[in-house]
Amino acid sequence: MKIAVIPGDGIGGEVMDAALTVLDALDLNPELIMADAGDDCLERTGTPLPDETLEAVGEADATLFGAAGESAADVIVKLRREFGLFANLRPVRSLPGVQCLYPDLDFVIVRENTEDLYVGDEEYTSDGAVARRVITRAASERIVRFAFDYAVGDGRGGVTAVHKANVLKKTDGIFREVFYEVASSYPQVEANDYYVDATAMYLITQPHEFDVIVTTNMFGDILSDEAAALVGGLGVAPSANIGEKNAIFEPVHGSAPQIAGKNIANPTAMILSTALMLKHLKKPQEAQKIQEALEETLRNGLVTPDLGGDLGTDEMAREIARRI
Amino acid sequence: MKIAVIPGDGIGGEVMDAALTVLDALDLNPELIMADAGDDCLERTGTPLPDETLEAVGEADATLFGAAGESAADVIVKLRREFGLFANLRPVRSLPGVQCLYPDLDFVIVRENTEDLYVGDEEYTSDGAVARRVITRAASERIVRFAFDYAVGDGRGGVTAVHKANVLKKTDGIFREVFYEVASSYPQVEANDYYVDATAMYLITQPHEFDVIVTTNMFGDILSDEAAALVGGLGVAPSANIGEKNAIFEPVHGSAPQIAGKNIANPTAMILSTALMLKHLKKPQEAQKIQEALEETLRNGLVTPDLGGDLGTDEMAREIARRI
Ligand SMILES: CC(C)[C@H](C(=O)O)[C@@H](O)C(=O)O
Ligand SMILES: CC(C)[C@H](C(=O)O)[C@@H](O)C(=O)O
Repeated sequence: MKIAVIPGDGIGGEVMDAALTVLDALDLNPELIMADAGDDCLERTGTPLPDETLEAVGEADATLFGAAGESAADVIVKLRREFGLFANLRPVRSLPGVQCLYPDLDFVIVRENTEDLYVGDEEYTSDGAVARRVITRAASERIVRFAFDYAVGDGRGGVTAVHKANVLKKTDGIFREVFYEVASSYPQVEANDYYVDATAMYLITQPHEFDVIVTTNMFGDILSDEAAALVGGLGVAPSANIGEKNAIFEPVHGSAPQIAGKNIANPTAMILSTALMLKHLKKPQEAQKIQEALEETLRNGLVTPDLGGDLGTDEMAREIARRI
Repeated sequence: MKIAVIPGDGIGGEVMDAALTVLDALDLNPELIMADAGDDCLERTGTPLPDETLEAVGEADATLFGAAGESAADVIVKLRREFGLFANLRPVRSLPGVQCLYPDLDFVIVRENTEDLYVGDEEYTSDGAVARRVITRAASERIVRFAFDYAVGDGRGGVTAVHKANVLKKTDGIFREVFYEVASSYPQVEANDYYVDATAMYLITQPHEFDVIVTTNMFGDILSDEAAALVGGLGVAPSANIGEKNAIFEPVHGSAPQIAGKNIANPTAMILSTALMLKHLKKPQEAQKIQEALEETLRNGLVTPDLGGDLGTDEMAREIARRI
């Protein structure tokens, strides 16, 4: 098993070390390929995403990504597009011992990861600028199918499409149309759809009704941060970027420069991302072991200061590793 | 004082009647011009927004708008653009007796209301569709200036710009740039900016830090529904669409067909929108009277079922009117 490892900037290195400590406690002996990206990398090498890093990601079975700073958009958005990592999977799951609005949430946001306003097609005009929001039938179908397959595989009963087809009649009209076309071949899964603004409200007022949400790129970006807030914030929110051949696993949080280097960053999001990676690599038992060891550690309050504990990032990681 | 009145579809008529009951309790004797719009109107007249309605809005000092159904985008978005109602003001304020996440919130979202993905410039392509997201310096400057003027006038200490300039480098780059340019002429008001995804999280984790939020059209649409959920949901969320010459006041909620005609719709959002109208028409004392009568009514639990009471929409309105 070949894993590319991109610690990146800020707290990226610290949470990555924590994840590797936990990974090391499993009997997997992965081959780790360390790779460079982000602001520091830009300063040192002149580019935030060197060719060697692209190569490392390309030849690895999966990649762990820590965080990138100011250059994040040029690193992670580029990686997603370059490797066709079309599905951004963002589980929203309450954890024991983590203060949050809802202690019993468990749903998943499946975010289209390659198009929409993220195509990077913008131009200045005489009086401002214009960005193109691109929605294709092919990418819509691919992500919707992924969401339904995920629902089936994970034993989930419903998929909700989120869009703004009342205003974006053509682009999101296609997304909604494709959604119901695909839905018709999954009769065992319930399908419904909401407007994105209503969803932003429902996530707060009736989050339990969600099972799998599938949505376009930018709406997914916004809603997944909102949803993360419901279950304890970015410190505990993992994500997976999945393509046909490659996959990158990263915490939803950024490089958090104000707390970097202090050994206080919460490693949970990175460690849960590592568990997602193992599940993706067909190691569900190992993923489960991480999940259980993490939950026990959280329940025992052996946690970083943001969660009310007094452990360092590395100590929390060792507590989790010990329980594997 | 000439007021155009557009009840529209679904619960629009019921909450509008409620608002007019309350308005009637003040000694203003406005001239009301009833006007037609929405799905029913479309069915009856062949258009969801007849010319007479546009005329009525054009000649009124202000317009009260109830709700539109399926045709909402063709009605309200068109009205906003047609009359250059560039500022969409959405107060987020906790109310007594209304169950909500935070009992003490008080901030305002100022949403740009004429451009962004709402320009309606979409086209089909060979493989899908493309929508254009238009951001101009002029509209950005106008809305940012409005936000700062509002902050000064309302005694608020800070304005936060919300954007996604890390991905939308040109369009939102302009918005952010203009924001800080304008901010520099308001040295007494604090200015800062956040990414939209982070804001979607902060609205839940640290909403008290917000005072005035200014943002582009689509982000404002999403964030204002999210924010409404924090203080009790759409039933109590008012809004104002303000232009140079005209202004339209409407609840954030839609036509809610499933509860229409039952006299159970919560009239609070429409009544608060009416108070916003009076404030706009330089009748701050009358606006204040509505606000106080409403709050007393809420405190006494003389409310519709959604708020835990057993009053009809019309009865709740009469209770408020009696207290004026
Ligand atoms: C860093 C940024 C470009 C990125 C995005 O917008 O996708 C981040 O917010 C995320 O959600 O992974
Ligand atoms: C009905 C719809 C077109 C409208 C919008 O998107 O602006 C609504 O959601 C709103 O917020 O007023």
